[in-house]
Amino acid sequence: MLKSVLENKELYQPGLSIDCVIFGFHDNQLKVLLIKTKYSNKWALPGGFVSLNEGIDEAAVTVLHRRTGLNGIFLRQFSTFGAANRCDVEVSNNILRFYNIPIEDGKWFASRFVTVGYYALVDFLQTIPQPLAADEIVEWIDHDAVPELVLDHKEILDKALATLRNELNLTPVGYNLLPEKFTIPELQKLYETILGKKLDRRNFLRKITAIGILIKLDEKKSNVAHKAPNLYRFDKEKYEAVVKNGINQGW
Amino acid sequence: MLKSVLENKELYQPGLSIDCVIFGFHDNQLKVLLIKTKYSNKWALPGGFVSLNEGIDEAAVTVLHRRTGLNGIFLRQFSTFGAANRCDVEVSNNILRFYNIPIEDGKWFASRFVTVGYYALVDFLQTIPQPLAADEIVEWIDHDAVPELVLDHKEILDKALATLRNELNLTPVGYNLLPEKFTIPELQKLYETILGKKLDRRNFLRKITAIGILIKLDEKKSNVAHKAPNLYRFDKEKYEAVVKNGINQGW
Repeated sequence: MLKSVLENKELYQPGLSIDCVIFGFHDNQLKVLLIKTKYSNKWALPGGFVSLNEGIDEAAVTVLHRRTGLNGIFLRQFSTFGAANRCDVEVSNNILRFYNIPIEDGKWFASRFVTVGYYALVDFLQTIPQPLAADEIVEWIDHDAVPELVLDHKEILDKALATLRNELNLTPVGYNLLPEKFTIPELQKLYETILGKKLDRRNFLRKITAIGILIKLDEKKSNVAHKAPNLYRFDKEKYEAVVKNGINQGW
Repeated sequence: MLKSVLENKELYQPGLSIDCVIFGFHDNQLKVLLIKTKYSNKWALPGGFVSLNEGIDEAAVTVLHRRTGLNGIFLRQFSTFGAANRCDVEVSNNILRFYNIPIEDGKWFASRFVTVGYYALVDFLQTIPQPLAADEIVEWIDHDAVPELVLDHKEILDKALATLRNELNLTPVGYNLLPEKFTIPELQKLYETILGKKLDRRNFLRKITAIGILIKLDEKKSNVAHKAPNLYRFDKEKYEAVVKNGINQGW
């Protein structure tokens, strides 16, 4: 993929890249999709370049597919990163380390790229990446255990998570991340996992109920020793209305 | 300014621009700072280009200064626009209309630029623009009466306003936009002006009080016929804490 970009670089928007922060949730774990080449010990966000004839939002989908094999993921643009020195790439013996190419060949890469960040939150069990380049691996990594990242990718990751956490105040999450029927403690755990902190049980129940997207079922969770908790499902119509209009009709 | 960019285009990031949406509030009016050259009937957001050795956030400040003479405005990045066809610029008689330059000279401009949008909300009486280019005018235009804009600038403006409205759910506004001492109806009018809709008086009072940033003064507004309303001021320390941490400690 990289080779074909270099050979056709006049077909790409110069100095512009895309980086994708894909958060995965499953079984009360927050994970991040990261990429590594065999030439570097550092990991990277799946990223790539923008064809001249492609909008940046479409390019983000293409980029994610090319690096991870994934399709059909709804990406949200969250921020653009363009510090003057953000592309001071790692060079040794005149080789651009991450890509293992000579500086001269990689001149195009060595200039400052401004990168547009996109993020998504997906069920990671439903989202099985497959690298399309032979010399790359793609893996779900626990957010708590993210290794050293190239360039400013740590900053990009942190900002994506901060945006996602902010989003929780404006829009509901959970649909497609929880089983169709779930308990309030399961939903709370999802919020706690994203927020990275414990929440008060009563406050959570009050606030999540106030959003008006839950339907209490006449069923209890089975396989639970005692005090089986009630099952709920999302009211899809109301859920989508809140996604569209925001939780805080606020003012 | 444009001439100097064209003559030194190798010093600028190719295919990248900045556009600034400056909202002004004063006397219950929402205004937008727009620019016009004498060569086109359309107006534009104040925008410009990014030096190779400059971060995009600093470039935004430079761009705003070069087009409007303004300094010291805190700009927030809100979105990046890069549709494939966003730069299908207006051409007639082989002249790029907005800039009045021949297509050949303006080739650099005629390619697709991806533009990073920044916005600010300022007291427009305190913010007096001065064009630094002889053939441009810069004006505060009522938001309700924005004329036809070049390229996708209307979309950029709309998105900036939607972002600002969303921000009202996360952060307080008013500081530097209202007199030091103000009444609740004055503050409500500020919110109504930004939101473009009437708010219920009681709900507003309840919600704005709940944020905990207001200090009720032992003074009433003078020059008011009867039922003089109470004066308030912002508790600066608390206000800044809420700006930092967000209104919705939420979950």
